[in-house]
Amino acid sequence: MLHELFTPSVQHALDLVGIFVFAISGALLAVRKNFDVFGIAVLAEVTALGGGLFRDLIIGAVPPAAFSDLGYFITPLLAAVLVFFLHPEVERTQNAVNVFDAAGLGLFCVTGTTKAYDYGLGLTSSAALGLATAVGGGVLRDILANEVPSLLRWDRDLYAVPAIVGATIVALCIRFDTLNAATSGVAIVTAFLLRLAAMRYHWRAPRAWNRRSAAAEEG
Amino acid sequence: MLHELFTPSVQHALDLVGIFVFAISGALLAVRKNFDVFGIAVLAEVTALGGGLFRDLIIGAVPPAAFSDLGYFITPLLAAVLVFFLHPEVERTQNAVNVFDAAGLGLFCVTGTTKAYDYGLGLTSSAALGLATAVGGGVLRDILANEVPSLLRWDRDLYAVPAIVGATIVALCIRFDTLNAATSGVAIVTAFLLRLAAMRYHWRAPRAWNRRSAAAEEG
Amino acid sequence: MLHELFTPSVQHALDLVGIFVFAISGALLAVRKNFDVFGIAVLAEVTALGGGLFRDLIIGAVPPAAFSDLGYFITPLLAAVLVFFLHPEVERTQNAVNVFDAAGLGLFCVTGTTKAYDYGLGLTSSAALGLATAVGGGVLRDILANEVPSLLRWDRDLYAVPAIVGATIVALCIRFDTLNAATSGVAIVTAFLLRLAAMRYHWRAPRAWNRRSAAAEEG
Repeated sequence: MLHELFTPSVQHALDLVGIFVFAISGALLAVRKNFDVFGIAVLAEVTALGGGLFRDLIIGAVPPAAFSDLGYFITPLLAAVLVFFLHPEVERTQNAVNVFDAAGLGLFCVTGTTKAYDYGLGLTSSAALGLATAVGGGVLRDILANEVPSLLRWDRDLYAVPAIVGATIVALCIRFDTLNAATSGVAIVTAFLLRLAAMRYHWRAPRAWNRRSAAAEEG
Repeated sequence: MLHELFTPSVQHALDLVGIFVFAISGALLAVRKNFDVFGIAVLAEVTALGGGLFRDLIIGAVPPAAFSDLGYFITPLLAAVLVFFLHPEVERTQNAVNVFDAAGLGLFCVTGTTKAYDYGLGLTSSAALGLATAVGGGVLRDILANEVPSLLRWDRDLYAVPAIVGATIVALCIRFDTLNAATSGVAIVTAFLLRLAAMRYHWRAPRAWNRRSAAAEEG
Repeated sequence: MLHELFTPSVQHALDLVGIFVFAISGALLAVRKNFDVFGIAVLAEVTALGGGLFRDLIIGAVPPAAFSDLGYFITPLLAAVLVFFLHPEVERTQNAVNVFDAAGLGLFCVTGTTKAYDYGLGLTSSAALGLATAVGGGVLRDILANEVPSLLRWDRDLYAVPAIVGATIVALCIRFDTLNAATSGVAIVTAFLLRLAAMRYHWRAPRAWNRRSAAAEEG
């Protein structure tokens, strides 16, 4: 099993860290949207577990890990409680949250890709599903909050590219039979650092060519 | 099979009642949003069947009951036709609709929890999925109508708590091996009455601590 | 297998055409919503593959074709690249796009219905799932773009009816054991022509009876 890149306990601990930081970002958005305590918990759960849930439904791994591992379910609730009581403090540490979110992004794109490949998907599909695992929770979070997913917006720092790079590194390692804990770690760290750089230097992705002419047509 | 708490025909009749009242709430929202007759039918179907569909995908019960039982598919269409022709009358009976919706909520959180447990989920996960079964259709309804799910909004009467209580009673009964038609009935009625009380006395859930400081930061 | 109505290569080519035109419609909406290049690609993928993905999850065909056939994944990316560079030209050919979209609608409602039936669903459920296959991608596209699904809006030309007619023809043919490449072709062409006529003559579906009284109550 490729999936067992790290010892199970290390893998599980890393998963819980990723889930926790994603849950924090969901809970914070819920507070900003003025949701009540249940809205905060729901948005924390959906953000943290949505991407992995989608992946598990696609590969047929039912019931999904989100429903078979109690730790996966409890962790977002802890994040929701933390934000509920301490959100001004958590907001103030937004930079720290962003760093953890970047770590979650790197982690999930790598574990998502390897799990998809373990379940028999091709390399390209595995990388695509790894990307979906990493960004899916955030997209569901924004849909529930009735906002345009920040993944899709041009005025946000690059988010997809680091995950694409991480998933691609994993796929290439599988292709050349060199995937192990070390190369996986390289993929995670690369995606993580790329996301940090994107936030630091406000890297943006281009919008469609000839926007001007389009705008003129619209106007 | 725990799932067979009632005789199959009683169970089926109760399911159809729950589906019907949820479909009414979906169809009414569609009318308010000015959707056409197909929009009304789609929103009725999604509201009535969405929660159970999600549950069945998670536990791997495919094809979901929504697609294998013709009555589940036809019932929301009947609700849509009723609302299409009689919606001013149906609106005027909004209180009656709310009472039925509360009954559907109680029913679905109980049957959702037992079905999830039957398919091998743990007690906590089963209760969580029972909750998702009860509230999932309404969340999908609001997403399709492009509104913030009323489940998440602080200015709506408690909706999640009655379902959480009902699902928890079922999980405790399973834990102590006392789940039967009588205790299931108690769980359904408890959730039902709690929801009625929440509407009657406008119980709300709290928003995040220190909202004021957050508002000040935002402002 | 009913599913093999056409030779596999013809079937596959038709699928790719349908995927391509749906992807164009998703990518164009992304440009209008001012999304960046990744948003364009995501919306192209979701629009093209969302309906089939939903169908495959419901019938338990995992991993879905969208993730097991590389051509299904690549085609929307080609459409996204095309729209990215040439969108003013593509917009100008909106009529051509609409014609292709109508072709995709006809095609997907027929192949969706037959595939659902092949996996053991009843006739009515198969037709319903065929409809969901045809319109599901567009609904997901509009949800991601944070708009009310155009499927549900009364001020849009009929979209569901042609797909319902196409899926119903297929279900009737299955019922009377006369489904083959010719009758499937008739179903596809009927849905296609109905959609063209709906656009040409701006056919609309009725809204709820007594809108006036409802509006008065709201006002």
